Amino acid sequence: MIPMNLMKNKVADYIVTGQWAKKAYQEAQIFGKANKIASSEDKTFSYIPDCSDLPISPDADYVYICENNTIYGTKFKTLPNTKGKTLVSDVSSCFLSEPMDVTKYGLVYGGVQKNIGPAGVVIVIIREDLITEDTLPGTPTMLKYKTHADANSLYNTPPAYGIYICGKVFKWIQKFGGLDAMKKHNEEKAKILYDFLDESELFKGTVRKEDRSLMNVPFITGNEELDAKFVKESKAAGFENLKGHRSVGGMRASIYNAMPIEGVKALVEFMKKFEVENK
Amino acid sequence: MIPMNLMKNKVADYIVTGQWAKKAYQEAQIFGKANKIASSEDKTFSYIPDCSDLPISPDADYVYICENNTIYGTKFKTLPNTKGKTLVSDVSSCFLSEPMDVTKYGLVYGGVQKNIGPAGVVIVIIREDLITEDTLPGTPTMLKYKTHADANSLYNTPPAYGIYICGKVFKWIQKFGGLDAMKKHNEEKAKILYDFLDESELFKGTVRKEDRSLMNVPFITGNEELDAKFVKESKAAGFENLKGHRSVGGMRASIYNAMPIEGVKALVEFMKKFEVENK
Repeated sequence: MIPMNLMKNKVADYIVTGQWAKKAYQEAQIFGKANKIASSEDKTFSYIPDCSDLPISPDADYVYICENNTIYGTKFKTLPNTKGKTLVSDVSSCFLSEPMDVTKYGLVYGGVQKNIGPAGVVIVIIREDLITEDTLPGTPTMLKYKTHADANSLYNTPPAYGIYICGKVFKWIQKFGGLDAMKKHNEEKAKILYDFLDESELFKGTVRKEDRSLMNVPFITGNEELDAKFVKESKAAGFENLKGHRSVGGMRASIYNAMPIEGVKALVEFMKKFEVENK
Repeated sequence: MIPMNLMKNKVADYIVTGQWAKKAYQEAQIFGKANKIASSEDKTFSYIPDCSDLPISPDADYVYICENNTIYGTKFKTLPNTKGKTLVSDVSSCFLSEPMDVTKYGLVYGGVQKNIGPAGVVIVIIREDLITEDTLPGTPTMLKYKTHADANSLYNTPPAYGIYICGKVFKWIQKFGGLDAMKKHNEEKAKILYDFLDESELFKGTVRKEDRSLMNVPFITGNEELDAKFVKESKAAGFENLKGHRSVGGMRASIYNAMPIEGVKALVEFMKKFEVENK
């Protein structure tokens, strides 16, 4: 949808920091010239490349990032220097986890299924001048941002239940103290887990420290059998979904907004116990 | 999505019996030659045209219909003679209202929001030979039927809550006695309402008798002020959504699977009372 609407010059620059960014990059090639201007695939996407002085294409319609990489547990702590080009960001897995200055982006989008509501709703925040009739030939009406903007997002029958739940979650976040409080909450949770990983002799985080996500914390023991044992025992102890994504293995703790601090503390206690038992 | 996947010869025939079929017809023109081979627009879509011997295009990739027209209250009681061409049908507003022989179609699709579940899920039933890699150039991966077929509908994060509710409704229909029982239930409800409309001196159905939908029953008094009064008073009496679609006015009772027979009886009682009071 993004290339169809924004690729007026049929050129776009992609920073590939994980599977979702890679899929977006490959998909954009259907519609024009997509350039991979930076990547962290050389080290299994375990870091965010330096984006302070990238070879931005002079005729690029936009620069694309996936801001938080769910599978690999990295996050852009500094937005790339796009040299004046429109920044497009997939924020699916960090949406509303902390304050965000939307004026720095041309388009921000994300599925709501991590921090906001049930799967099946996508929120798009787009700069008004990017909403135009001038889309690529063959763009279906449903895939034009203008269609939805003109119709107040009611062009089609919207997923009303999902939107209703998003509204409830917005209110819950406000009651929680807003995004500043949510950031503090998330930093506190992540710190407990990362501090333990840094101390532990058994477990080890897989991500470069400065690029660590607040939402997704992948870790390993360095021994696949022990990883499998941990996944199995943690599941039996009531910890769900600690198995890493099938494409990378290991473990991953997703500690989205809704995860209470007690959940992270309990996980660390369990990990400590496991470490003692498996020395 | 249908033209992008099925319009191999870039030719398709459309039978235009309402706004949704018309939108589909217009949309298909983006991708190839869409022929309007029949239409009932001359009489505000109040009937289904004779489709026994239509000028089917020799190179048509498919013939398209919208089987039940929500806004106008018509339904195809006999499927068109497609002369061997693939039949594509939008069954959004009659899905699971009665048994359907899917072998007569190449592709059946519908939003679930009428009879099956919450808005935000679409069900597609497609003949296997129509699922191919050979889509129109520029078709996004997400819009290829093959993508979803190959991935068991898990290519993207699916709208899990909506699908869960659909499962609950499937079980409810089974418990109800299946689609044969559902058809009987729907026929019984519709008969009560249509019989009254045929008797009434004030209210009048807008659809040709042989094309009447079991799901959507539009009616008028013939007097716009009286229509408005009816909508207002019926709402006050607890009947929701009786106002006709904004594009046609009048009234419309939608009596989907979930509407109990008591609801229809209560509506007819209310209409009788209104008729006496407004003679």
